[in-house]
Amino acid sequence: MTNIKEILIGKQFPTSMDIHERLDKLRALAVFASDPISSNAYATEAIMSVLIVLGSRSLGLTWHVGLAVATLVILVIFSYIQTILHYPEGGGAYTVAKDNLGKFPSLLAAAALLTDYILTVSVSVSAGVRAVTSAFPDAFIYRIEIAILAIIFITWMNLRGVRESGTVFAIPTYAFVGGVLLTIIIGFTRYFGMFGATSLPVIEQQVQSATSVAGFAYIWLLLRAFAGGCTALTGIEAISNGVQAFKRPESKNAATTMVIMGVMAMSLFVGITYLSTHMSLIPEEAESILSQMTRAITGGNFLYYWVQFFTAGILFLAANTAYQDFPRLSAFLSNDGFMPRWMQVRGTRLVFSSGIVVLSIIASLIVLVFRADEIAMLPLYALGVMLSFSISQTGMFRLMGRIAHLKPGESIHTQVTEIHYERGARWKQALNAVGAVTTFGVFVVLMSTKFLEGAWIVVMIIPLLVAMFYSIHKHYERVATALSTNGLASQDLSEVADVVIVPIADIHRGTLRALMYAKRISKDVRAICVTTSPEMKARLLRRWKRFSKLTRRMKLITIEYDYRDILTPFVQYIKRVNDEEFPDQLTTVVIPAFVPTYRIGRVLHNQTAARIRSTLRNYKDIVIIDVPTHIDSKI
Amino acid sequence: MTNIKEILIGKQFPTSMDIHERLDKLRALAVFASDPISSNAYATEAIMSVLIVLGSRSLGLTWHVGLAVATLVILVIFSYIQTILHYPEGGGAYTVAKDNLGKFPSLLAAAALLTDYILTVSVSVSAGVRAVTSAFPDAFIYRIEIAILAIIFITWMNLRGVRESGTVFAIPTYAFVGGVLLTIIIGFTRYFGMFGATSLPVIEQQVQSATSVAGFAYIWLLLRAFAGGCTALTGIEAISNGVQAFKRPESKNAATTMVIMGVMAMSLFVGITYLSTHMSLIPEEAESILSQMTRAITGGNFLYYWVQFFTAGILFLAANTAYQDFPRLSAFLSNDGFMPRWMQVRGTRLVFSSGIVVLSIIASLIVLVFRADEIAMLPLYALGVMLSFSISQTGMFRLMGRIAHLKPGESIHTQVTEIHYERGARWKQALNAVGAVTTFGVFVVLMSTKFLEGAWIVVMIIPLLVAMFYSIHKHYERVATALSTNGLASQDLSEVADVVIVPIADIHRGTLRALMYAKRISKDVRAICVTTSPEMKARLLRRWKRFSKLTRRMKLITIEYDYRDILTPFVQYIKRVNDEEFPDQLTTVVIPAFVPTYRIGRVLHNQTAARIRSTLRNYKDIVIIDVPTHIDSKI
Repeated sequence: MTNIKEILIGKQFPTSMDIHERLDKLRALAVFASDPISSNAYATEAIMSVLIVLGSRSLGLTWHVGLAVATLVILVIFSYIQTILHYPEGGGAYTVAKDNLGKFPSLLAAAALLTDYILTVSVSVSAGVRAVTSAFPDAFIYRIEIAILAIIFITWMNLRGVRESGTVFAIPTYAFVGGVLLTIIIGFTRYFGMFGATSLPVIEQQVQSATSVAGFAYIWLLLRAFAGGCTALTGIEAISNGVQAFKRPESKNAATTMVIMGVMAMSLFVGITYLSTHMSLIPEEAESILSQMTRAITGGNFLYYWVQFFTAGILFLAANTAYQDFPRLSAFLSNDGFMPRWMQVRGTRLVFSSGIVVLSIIASLIVLVFRADEIAMLPLYALGVMLSFSISQTGMFRLMGRIAHLKPGESIHTQVTEIHYERGARWKQALNAVGAVTTFGVFVVLMSTKFLEGAWIVVMIIPLLVAMFYSIHKHYERVATALSTNGLASQDLSEVADVVIVPIADIHRGTLRALMYAKRISKDVRAICVTTSPEMKARLLRRWKRFSKLTRRMKLITIEYDYRDILTPFVQYIKRVNDEEFPDQLTTVVIPAFVPTYRIGRVLHNQTAARIRSTLRNYKDIVIIDVPTHIDSKI
Repeated sequence: MTNIKEILIGKQFPTSMDIHERLDKLRALAVFASDPISSNAYATEAIMSVLIVLGSRSLGLTWHVGLAVATLVILVIFSYIQTILHYPEGGGAYTVAKDNLGKFPSLLAAAALLTDYILTVSVSVSAGVRAVTSAFPDAFIYRIEIAILAIIFITWMNLRGVRESGTVFAIPTYAFVGGVLLTIIIGFTRYFGMFGATSLPVIEQQVQSATSVAGFAYIWLLLRAFAGGCTALTGIEAISNGVQAFKRPESKNAATTMVIMGVMAMSLFVGITYLSTHMSLIPEEAESILSQMTRAITGGNFLYYWVQFFTAGILFLAANTAYQDFPRLSAFLSNDGFMPRWMQVRGTRLVFSSGIVVLSIIASLIVLVFRADEIAMLPLYALGVMLSFSISQTGMFRLMGRIAHLKPGESIHTQVTEIHYERGARWKQALNAVGAVTTFGVFVVLMSTKFLEGAWIVVMIIPLLVAMFYSIHKHYERVATALSTNGLASQDLSEVADVVIVPIADIHRGTLRALMYAKRISKDVRAICVTTSPEMKARLLRRWKRFSKLTRRMKLITIEYDYRDILTPFVQYIKRVNDEEFPDQLTTVVIPAFVPTYRIGRVLHNQTAARIRSTLRNYKDIVIIDVPTHIDSKI
């Protein structure tokens, strides 16, 4: 057992080994940017797959919708820079909301983020697999299997304790950015016929409008397309969670990185959107828009396969970031008593193993249910991000309000951080207000436009998660009260009754051993046996008599029973003794159990001992003693 | 829990209610004949599906092969009548072999029979479903689901304790026999143009020979066809197992019933084989030969649906007989120590529930693997029957030899039965010899001809089962030795060391309760705590001091540990105490466990208590005491 685990996961790390790697900006950018940059693999397509309903002629609108999305991204990035500067210890939406808004908003943000992290894995892995199957269409029928294998691989790596080791991340991230940028540049060169480049093949395909849409329905469709494009915003918050991973000065470096990340992500998004719109590409199930565009521009040469390969790479890395975020947030919540306590326990490799496993299972289920179709999952995706953005910005709005009241040179402590007087706090507050209102607006649009397409699932799950947080919290509070030693006097601890009950089925070495143990701790030992036939009873009495020297001063109680569930009379007897003879005292039950040394041998026994034990556990004031007799035997 | 079980399975029966119903010949025939008679649904087809390789013109051979099979059936029936007369207590192959041949042959027969019973369920249910889908071809794609549902239904009925209530059985058995007989009579009338009946449509279809076959390969093919037809023999032994179910005089009534059963089953077999051969029917996957024949003869009228409906009915009944035989034989084997002991435990409704459930699971798996195609399963099927027939006949040969040595008026006891002098014992012995040799011959033919088609599975499984019987037996013998009280003196039972170890994680009401219990039974109480940080240790020492009044005269041992698997140091400490300080004595460990009253609340705790408990169970000489603290709380 231990050996298999060690081979798979690696040798265990001592707790004291837990030191953090600090990243320079170049590597930090690679680590944190993989998630937002990778959304370029599907964001444009998410807009187009809505607009296609109007027919291929309306796909030109994608460009305008894309510009609106890009504007929102810039707004959100500038708002998050404020967060970074004020929460240098790491300010996820949960922390900011807890510090400024209170318990409920923080839990709401946490629930939104958790669903978002899960979907990050499902969406990114599915999109990554699609990048592979776009290049190799024969693999399309195995997409679900490939996606699940990818999740298993990422899970395995994370259980081994892959850290945010920037170097590994740097390769696919920069290779993707470089490859796509080059494609875009070639695309523009060819599109505008610069340098005498051969002009681009504009696809002639036509798709007729499925329905004629006008008036309110038209606006509705545009809103849906815009909401689809908002998946480009996912992952932007990652840096704010991980400020401590930067070299000093952390906040400043993080803020700079955020700006670069924004510029990079938006260049790609705007470039891809412009070109695919003007090349009249049409979304297809089997080949992604990015793949179609790259294929058309590059003519399917080496650069095409480069882009596809690193698209898959960066998407798997994006999934990997959720493996950092989900377990960390779960552990925070667990530490505050809102998640099961074992979410905080770190495994042999110092990672939050439970969180990793829970994330993998849920993400795999989503991949299965949605058959690895990331476009179908997108309606669920951006919703959580937007809600957490909005809550986080609202928290920052509050914080800025408090800062605006400080006089120059003044500084105060909040629960989590220290704030100082700063200039232009009112202006920044206004920016946060705009950010909060806009992202909340997008949340509402997403919720209403995508409700029937799947957003309802998230709308159901987030409140359920919040309710779960509250009830877990209540449970732990109750446990703490029950176990509290406040005002505890020694007579409060139940007295131990001077009685020991030993359920037996026969007199043999094992039961005699149990009886001897019982005799040592009590003067009132009662062996009880449920007999199912007169022969059994006679045999038992005969054997009891034979060992009268050992069993003297013990009572043998036989219960005749005409059914086969001998557990019932045993338990009834024990309960009667506990409730009537010795109320409010601890009754002791000694269970003679024989344990075959080979585990498989255990299936050959009736397991009565195990069943008595697990039944008695449900009754208060019963102490169970296991007196095992080991039997050295294979089956 | 109990309520759901009671609704599904019914109120529990007292053990004393177990009285057997006795059957008159008419109803006994219906009960026992369903299995052999039902094989008419596929036996002819099993022959034809081999011969079709030679092309449809060679299907005429079916008739000759069928006659050979019928001859064998008659031989086996006459041999089995001997068994019935000499083992009135019920003489399955297992009993006969145990009484006359010894342990190994009896276990071989038992293994063969168990595989046979399992296949009876899979084959009969699949064939029954095929009768349904032959009539309603649209249901063909759901055949696996229907088959599994049928198994679940039969399982459910048997768990409720359906007895061999003859009346229920009588309806489909006689309805099937009547329906098929009527079809055959109409068929003959039309075939021979008697009474001016419209002549039968002889099907014009032609299938070309797949390969040209001659010489040895031709004989091989005929043998394979014969072996296929031998499925008609399955179920013949049923009466010999159930002699006690007959009214007095049991043996005589059973023997008479056996003869009638043979006549009935063979009339149908010969009739079906003659007609389907002479009508040039060709086996098809979606429609059975019986269905084709009936459809052609009746023209698809009411009689056709009658036959199809009761074909399904009698096949499900045939499956049901395995639900009597498999659990009964398993319980016999269990009683002799060759199967897990819980196979003998009768459930709330006085049936051997474990056997029923095991049978259902394995039979369902086979249906799934073979996709409910009974023709594909047949190569596995008849093998077990033939082996058990052969062993049983050999046993009878031995018994007859002993009888032949008796003088008139003399009688002796075997282990199981009483035998008297009888006339013609030598002749009967010769009959048994022929039976044994022939069935063994068929077994060899089946094994070699069907080896690659699936018989190898059975050839593998039977020895594995026998090996399992032996190793289970060995295990129980070892357990009996280990628990034996022969020459047991009180000093042989391990002494109890005066030490109690209490693993704790913190000082709270629960751990204090455990410490108080420990103090009551020992003067040397040691609380041990694994600390993972200096803060944790300081806090623990502070709290221990606070309760110094309660904890005086107890030791607190803290172990500093730099890993998270705190189980390891706990267990190491306990083992050291047990091995070094108190060798050969029982060391007591008191585990403070808190038990949330709501089961779901338990997932919120680290389960350290449960893990310590299950780890310590593997070490000898450690007594585990659970001191539970119940916490009244929902999550």
